[in-house]
Amino acid sequence: MLIDTPYPKSFASDNHAGVHPAILEAMVAANAGDAPAYGDDDWTAAFERRVTETFGPQAEGFAVLNGAGANMVGLALPLSRYEAVICADSAHIATHETGAAERLLGTKLITVLTPDGKIRPADITSRLHVLGNPHESQPKVVSVSQVTELGTCYTPAELTALSETAHSHGLLLHVDGARLANAAAFLGCDLRTITTDAGVDLFSFGGTKNGALAAEAVVILTPHLAQAVPFLRRQSLQLASKMRFISAQLSALLTNSLWHTNASHANAMAVRLAEGVADIPSISLAYPVESNAVFAEVPAAAVTQLLKRHRFHYTDEAANVVRWMTAFDTTVEHVDDFVADIHAAMST
Amino acid sequence: MLIDTPYPKSFASDNHAGVHPAILEAMVAANAGDAPAYGDDDWTAAFERRVTETFGPQAEGFAVLNGAGANMVGLALPLSRYEAVICADSAHIATHETGAAERLLGTKLITVLTPDGKIRPADITSRLHVLGNPHESQPKVVSVSQVTELGTCYTPAELTALSETAHSHGLLLHVDGARLANAAAFLGCDLRTITTDAGVDLFSFGGTKNGALAAEAVVILTPHLAQAVPFLRRQSLQLASKMRFISAQLSALLTNSLWHTNASHANAMAVRLAEGVADIPSISLAYPVESNAVFAEVPAAAVTQLLKRHRFHYTDEAANVVRWMTAFDTTVEHVDDFVADIHAAMST
Amino acid sequence: MLIDTPYPKSFASDNHAGVHPAILEAMVAANAGDAPAYGDDDWTAAFERRVTETFGPQAEGFAVLNGAGANMVGLALPLSRYEAVICADSAHIATHETGAAERLLGTKLITVLTPDGKIRPADITSRLHVLGNPHESQPKVVSVSQVTELGTCYTPAELTALSETAHSHGLLLHVDGARLANAAAFLGCDLRTITTDAGVDLFSFGGTKNGALAAEAVVILTPHLAQAVPFLRRQSLQLASKMRFISAQLSALLTNSLWHTNASHANAMAVRLAEGVADIPSISLAYPVESNAVFAEVPAAAVTQLLKRHRFHYTDEAANVVRWMTAFDTTVEHVDDFVADIHAAMST
Amino acid sequence: MLIDTPYPKSFASDNHAGVHPAILEAMVAANAGDAPAYGDDDWTAAFERRVTETFGPQAEGFAVLNGAGANMVGLALPLSRYEAVICADSAHIATHETGAAERLLGTKLITVLTPDGKIRPADITSRLHVLGNPHESQPKVVSVSQVTELGTCYTPAELTALSETAHSHGLLLHVDGARLANAAAFLGCDLRTITTDAGVDLFSFGGTKNGALAAEAVVILTPHLAQAVPFLRRQSLQLASKMRFISAQLSALLTNSLWHTNASHANAMAVRLAEGVADIPSISLAYPVESNAVFAEVPAAAVTQLLKRHRFHYTDEAANVVRWMTAFDTTVEHVDDFVADIHAAMST
Repeated sequence: MLIDTPYPKSFASDNHAGVHPAILEAMVAANAGDAPAYGDDDWTAAFERRVTETFGPQAEGFAVLNGAGANMVGLALPLSRYEAVICADSAHIATHETGAAERLLGTKLITVLTPDGKIRPADITSRLHVLGNPHESQPKVVSVSQVTELGTCYTPAELTALSETAHSHGLLLHVDGARLANAAAFLGCDLRTITTDAGVDLFSFGGTKNGALAAEAVVILTPHLAQAVPFLRRQSLQLASKMRFISAQLSALLTNSLWHTNASHANAMAVRLAEGVADIPSISLAYPVESNAVFAEVPAAAVTQLLKRHRFHYTDEAANVVRWMTAFDTTVEHVDDFVADIHAAMST
Repeated sequence: MLIDTPYPKSFASDNHAGVHPAILEAMVAANAGDAPAYGDDDWTAAFERRVTETFGPQAEGFAVLNGAGANMVGLALPLSRYEAVICADSAHIATHETGAAERLLGTKLITVLTPDGKIRPADITSRLHVLGNPHESQPKVVSVSQVTELGTCYTPAELTALSETAHSHGLLLHVDGARLANAAAFLGCDLRTITTDAGVDLFSFGGTKNGALAAEAVVILTPHLAQAVPFLRRQSLQLASKMRFISAQLSALLTNSLWHTNASHANAMAVRLAEGVADIPSISLAYPVESNAVFAEVPAAAVTQLLKRHRFHYTDEAANVVRWMTAFDTTVEHVDDFVADIHAAMST
Repeated sequence: MLIDTPYPKSFASDNHAGVHPAILEAMVAANAGDAPAYGDDDWTAAFERRVTETFGPQAEGFAVLNGAGANMVGLALPLSRYEAVICADSAHIATHETGAAERLLGTKLITVLTPDGKIRPADITSRLHVLGNPHESQPKVVSVSQVTELGTCYTPAELTALSETAHSHGLLLHVDGARLANAAAFLGCDLRTITTDAGVDLFSFGGTKNGALAAEAVVILTPHLAQAVPFLRRQSLQLASKMRFISAQLSALLTNSLWHTNASHANAMAVRLAEGVADIPSISLAYPVESNAVFAEVPAAAVTQLLKRHRFHYTDEAANVVRWMTAFDTTVEHVDDFVADIHAAMST
Repeated sequence: MLIDTPYPKSFASDNHAGVHPAILEAMVAANAGDAPAYGDDDWTAAFERRVTETFGPQAEGFAVLNGAGANMVGLALPLSRYEAVICADSAHIATHETGAAERLLGTKLITVLTPDGKIRPADITSRLHVLGNPHESQPKVVSVSQVTELGTCYTPAELTALSETAHSHGLLLHVDGARLANAAAFLGCDLRTITTDAGVDLFSFGGTKNGALAAEAVVILTPHLAQAVPFLRRQSLQLASKMRFISAQLSALLTNSLWHTNASHANAMAVRLAEGVADIPSISLAYPVESNAVFAEVPAAAVTQLLKRHRFHYTDEAANVVRWMTAFDTTVEHVDDFVADIHAAMST
């Protein structure tokens, strides 16, 4: 049944969701008279404490404004002007940040073809023959996305293998954790297990896709890198003057495990959606569902039909692959309504 | 009388203020279910309409995250890789953005010494002898701050003289309008008079210092420059995914002249403060009070005494010049309390 | 027979050769008292005339110092800060210029896997779905290498197809012509046929690998692009103060078809070398010999033996592929001696 | 007497001179068959030894193609993306390199007004109040020109004072030594006295203005900075493939003190020129003659008259200041002829 109400719940992006009430309340509560600007405020101090509690005493957290900003501030830290980043060819930094890495950092992205968005230790070592050759950009950082752009997750063991490989050759491991919370929720571990404990050197920690209004963090685990963050954050246009309102969002996510509540719910809705279409023979999953994304191969006619009422994206139109994303506020009803429409679209 | 309450109203910066209730309400109201990300939403469409209404039909507005971001996105538009910006040596882009212009744009800032933060047509023409010389950066943009960093304002006639001078030599006029509202309020004109009508080509329009949480706009008046904004805004880390919450702030400021209400109040409080100390012989104004800032020369001992209870900054410690800023939420009581403390400090 | 003389003729690179006597004589002749610096001299004027004679009246030539410099100055001209270059993944700009394109231009290189170093029109069109998407770098230039890094050449028809495809989508065609002379010599055409007449917009014209000491040119065929060259050349560290000595080299190459004499000789030596090993069953060509390079698959033991006396490089050690290059000064005796050593190495 | 021969010796620039015969001979001699490219050759090894002999065992020299290149490669070494350079406002990097420092390094140049092109320790310390302030570019390098753009020289004691001041605040001292030879010749010391022994960290050593064709060097005295040079030199378009011809020029200059012979002769010609006009009351020196440049205030009518036959530049047309430069090949006759013409021009 395709009902005619406009705008049912979007499955296009977790960015289409609004703000979680607890986070918005924290922002409203932060609007209490004056506070020093640029981070010298109590809300930011609280956020910094939560980072230490969550990721360990050596962790230093810096609030920024968006995910690309978190990546660019973080990656600027270890990279000299002639150094390069090894990443998956599907990495957000390689595909969806309008070349910010090249323009803002001047760095070369050495992209690796992967079957599932995940790079392996051999993908690192096979790129290292250029080390010492002055005609080639020198790999210095391995950057992985957790969750990957294909919705898959690295296990703690996989991350550890990557960090050990990187470190053994003098490289660092960076994680684009725009959906780090979803990964931890899927893996059933805490955030520290897939960062500090896995040998990660620095990472982005995403809030916006997990219920925040606009709040991400750069977290540094290798202390000497942190000294430059205040300068690079300001210069990279990622320092909010009324910082308390950014910090309050991140603190709310790190309070009472809201990050986990939101992420595990979104993940569960993705699983429900995948299970809801599992009995349709002409629909198959393109990748395993390991987060809040379902990548499915769907007949084109059905996609066309579904897009009349629903919002979602093709990720590979030639291969009929679509991406359906859930969010912290996707409900069972939203999913079941969508699943019903998918079934209906298949039978038209 | 120096009372012992901690944290009286800050006179350090308009960034120390919180968010105006109407703006916060607009943000909360925007949290209504799903909306497309990255600006394809109704709140952003409404903001764009208000830009046209305010600045004229050719005006195109693009919401960004902060003032430095608005400057960097705007200045990137006309500047080729070998072109330079003429600006006051006190300009925010030259002094308080951690070299973002140099790093992100690769541009040279040709800085002009000014008595009052304002550049004159002769400051432009005297820098143009380098035009055509391949050994020198080529001036392409004149960037002025309105309000200047010294709290002064350009009159419409002064701006028109600058734009005419710039245009006659093939240069463009850019305005860093982080406090454009305060300027219009001081000048007693609307926003269009000091932008569109004065021959400005593009400008930053500030919200954050005037009661927003974090919202600025790049406004383009020379249409061919606008085409590149979406790409440069995204690449420059200035595109919010949940854009509706940024647009809603800007729309609120442009609704019922809230921008004017806030700015004229802040300006009035600065005047009250300046008048309150006018009878103290050893305090003199460093610049005329033309916005929400008072720059005053104050004996060092009094400054030391005042800083025990109040927040404000030295702008030139050697010359004993301090800056006192008011905000949309500075009250008569705040000012009078501060004035009383200043008088007390002078007599100790 | 492996003779014991050190340093027989190098087959590692055409850069190992010295300077052609006629070019060195032209440089010595240019050392005639004073001359204006930075290109306002008679030798540079003569070079510019030869560019027009060779490439057509709209061609403007600018002498620079090396091949990477020619590429970076040329590519800087059409590229806005958010625009990208489509090129082969083997392109010199992508692999052997230490990330200069990313650092100096801030551009993304969209690399295309190719079987032979040559990109096809479909390699362009398949990358254009991102046009208009603000999250992605916008393709603006197609850059091809003529000769490619794999020693192969584009025919005039192939280049025309590329330029037509590029132009029909608003892109430009750039040619890295570090070995443009070798391509023209192989194709049996003049230089204009594979540049101006094929719809190329701008290109690098190499001198150094063809007998010069250090001299390349950026040649612009789309007039409006030329205006910025003097500024970008100076800024990009590619302007010689004593320019006459660079211009004299290029003029010498463009006089009496020295470019063709040198290139066709080098090409002939590569053919002779390839023919000399054609009867060795365990050696096979990796790519057709279309210039002054022979790429061959050679048993590892033979390579090891040969490297005891000769200089050449592996291009793919895992696949046992080596590159043998000839130069303007490679003689029949050099080739025959090397061929004899290859035969000997195969039989040990 | 104004003779009618066209093109008498130029006094416009030491770049108008040709190449010293010994240097050209060294280049011709280097054209001896094959040599490895990119610096793995005997001529480059010889140059590197001469650098050690000249500047001390810790000195590492890297040949580059021009002076701006030497400056950009050198300054790239210590500068992080948010760090700035303190230099005189007349510095070559600030005025005559088309903004290369800003574009290629992304750095801010903090320019200091000076009476004579020379900065003092207080010019450094007065700019350091920004250290630690994340809103401001962080000074990291002090760059001085030796000879300055105004023809003046720093004494060894002055350089030592600068290096001590810089080091005591964590900054480095860089010298743009495009005319370092002229400074040493004027000061009557060897090159080491004004570099290694004065606490300089890294410097450019110029050859082109002192009789070379095109050859400069980046010399590193602080060993940890040298590791990155090969990568940055290649990326910055400053690595010659046929390097032997660059190295041979530098070795020639460092052999039998040719650098000193050339520079002291040029300096002597400048002194002769200055003395030749000393008796003209209406001509006065703008700066003391401490190298191969004479800056003189000359009546405009005389300048106009002189420019009909001679080549030289105004450096400040409003103040009637001209620059007359001598070179290694300026003769006594050239000077005396010019002096005679100056006298004649004064009396017309």
